Amino acid sequence: MYEIVKHDQEMMRKINKGNILNLIREKKPVSRSELAKITGMSPTSVGRIVTELIELGLIKETELASSKVVGRKALLLDTEPNSVYAVCVQMDEDISRIGIVDFDGTIINEHSYVCDAHSMDWREFSDRICGEIEKVIAETHFEKNKIIGVGIGLPGLVDHVNGIVLFSPQLRWENVKLTEYFENRLGYPITIDNIIKAKALAENTYGSARDAKRTVFIHFGTGVGSALIVDNRIYRGITNSAGEIGHTTINPNGRLCDCGRRGCLQTYITERALLQEARTIKNISSIDEVFEASSRGEGWAASIVDNLHTYISIAICNIICMYNPNSVIIGGKMMKQPPEVENIIKSKVDKLIWAQFKGSYEIKCSSLGERAGMLGMSVLLVNKYIDIEL
Amino acid sequence: MYEIVKHDQEMMRKINKGNILNLIREKKPVSRSELAKITGMSPTSVGRIVTELIELGLIKETELASSKVVGRKALLLDTEPNSVYAVCVQMDEDISRIGIVDFDGTIINEHSYVCDAHSMDWREFSDRICGEIEKVIAETHFEKNKIIGVGIGLPGLVDHVNGIVLFSPQLRWENVKLTEYFENRLGYPITIDNIIKAKALAENTYGSARDAKRTVFIHFGTGVGSALIVDNRIYRGITNSAGEIGHTTINPNGRLCDCGRRGCLQTYITERALLQEARTIKNISSIDEVFEASSRGEGWAASIVDNLHTYISIAICNIICMYNPNSVIIGGKMMKQPPEVENIIKSKVDKLIWAQFKGSYEIKCSSLGERAGMLGMSVLLVNKYIDIEL
Repeated sequence: MYEIVKHDQEMMRKINKGNILNLIREKKPVSRSELAKITGMSPTSVGRIVTELIELGLIKETELASSKVVGRKALLLDTEPNSVYAVCVQMDEDISRIGIVDFDGTIINEHSYVCDAHSMDWREFSDRICGEIEKVIAETHFEKNKIIGVGIGLPGLVDHVNGIVLFSPQLRWENVKLTEYFENRLGYPITIDNIIKAKALAENTYGSARDAKRTVFIHFGTGVGSALIVDNRIYRGITNSAGEIGHTTINPNGRLCDCGRRGCLQTYITERALLQEARTIKNISSIDEVFEASSRGEGWAASIVDNLHTYISIAICNIICMYNPNSVIIGGKMMKQPPEVENIIKSKVDKLIWAQFKGSYEIKCSSLGERAGMLGMSVLLVNKYIDIEL
Repeated sequence: MYEIVKHDQEMMRKINKGNILNLIREKKPVSRSELAKITGMSPTSVGRIVTELIELGLIKETELASSKVVGRKALLLDTEPNSVYAVCVQMDEDISRIGIVDFDGTIINEHSYVCDAHSMDWREFSDRICGEIEKVIAETHFEKNKIIGVGIGLPGLVDHVNGIVLFSPQLRWENVKLTEYFENRLGYPITIDNIIKAKALAENTYGSARDAKRTVFIHFGTGVGSALIVDNRIYRGITNSAGEIGHTTINPNGRLCDCGRRGCLQTYITERALLQEARTIKNISSIDEVFEASSRGEGWAASIVDNLHTYISIAICNIICMYNPNSVIIGGKMMKQPPEVENIIKSKVDKLIWAQFKGSYEIKCSSLGERAGMLGMSVLLVNKYIDIEL
């Protein structure tokens, strides 16, 4: 039962290194003394970490003439984008993505693939993705020996420590030893994780919630999920399942969910629910038609979209009550037409939220969109590479 | 915006000291080498912390003959219960409690007071409590110079850093500078906090969730609230409001809540709601009558209680989805007749929970009951005293 975290020299070192790296990412170019000032760490400690990151090639010194004192030069620190590359994959039931991400979070080459997970088993699906990964690596001009690993983000319950997909309703996979398969096939170190957690980390590192102390990312897509980042680290829970708001009950006698229970939040927000309701009025083929009809001012569609936004706002309010975050980032395919939708959701949440929380949070749409998954996996790969994963 | 936590020597020292103290509390008597083994810390670091705690008088060495090797003696560490005393108060709208708590979490003297917060203003209320505190201190036989402070736990939104009760619907207080008042009146260092957070900390330190890595305490009382403890520390959120599950929406068109919104979880669980429903059948004066009638097998009451347990279980399921905790502790006056109710709730949650979470959590009734609030405040006072509050 007793699971003490080893809060020793080793852990402190990791936390400090992660914080210094994130500060350089945010404030580059930045001096050592500024890093010491912001973190409250000693110049010696900052210097040691900076030296280590320079030796790894991840950051570099740039000499800039100070504008204030003639002849005085300050050595500033900057990132080295071409130091390492992460090969990142976002798997989903219909469309998967592969990208090569540099150390600065720039995707230097990417492709998306229509690949129907339901029409094949996990081996066939994985075999295809491996083939595409090899092609993308081959066609991209970069130093291949700088690849630090392959990161795979996917929907569902992922045992990220042992590299096993325990259960993915979206992909219809159970107990798949994905890391083993990809490692054997590709020969690179493999990291897998839940895609929502990866996206949250990306928004916190590169996106709309850059460096907020407590960031929640909420994804409104095929399902509804969320993830909490505290002090730049994923709050995972005991089985890496924290944030599963899609299956919180918001109406005990409500709609039937595919999990077999009633009134799960996601039954009110998903594509399927919207389509079902829309088709009672008009024979349409995709939710895009609903959003378009709503934009044209068709009453039936406007009403469906308004109802969707209400449920999305309820989800956000419930999350704010539970996590009391600084920053809430929303994304996923049900978030159509930002920035208008951002304002609509913000004003609904402001009306619906319990008075105690008014003014405590910021709500923003994801600025990374569908690339967030790949970017988040690249952050996890870099963290592993420089040994700051806790 | 950038709020970096100073993860330096200082913070490491606090975390390590807290962990060593909790381990001694749990495993006493225990040797230094065992502490080093469990924590992974160096014998030198463990030795330094132990020396500091011995110098503060909080722990002591006891010489025990080892049973294995004749003549060999091991120095074991034990707590010193009489080293420090915390004066702890649990305030509520109807009944408040005052207790003197020793360093081992034993309440050496306690009283409860019927004190109606709604019939007087906060000054009068606080004045009466201060008077009672002075009486309790005077009547109790202990070394008064060992009092490390007065800890006050109360329902509502508490700014624990500045010592201000921002808003307490239960006490009907707003922006009350409670710490200032008590400090001036009593002359001791004062610590105030939200009572649910204090209770959660107590359950994690002394109670049913002793040392679980992630503990959620859920309180079903006048309202419904919860608090999350991670690695022995309270997860507070940005405004110390994390865990406010009582005002999460579980039915967007549901019952009217006193917060002015509809379908808040707590409208389905509180005493008032139960009484209201019960009185459509029978003229009763308290919920105890409902629980008693249910025990006697009266159908109307059994149905109300069953419905209550269902909503309590839904609340627990929603919390498990969000926090994915190791341990869930439930308490409050709506939790009648443990241990029977524990089994009822457990089996309901097992049925209602999403498959992904089955087997991941433990559910237990509070073992500390109404004393949890005072005990939690004593833990906070000790943490402040030995400077490990983060």
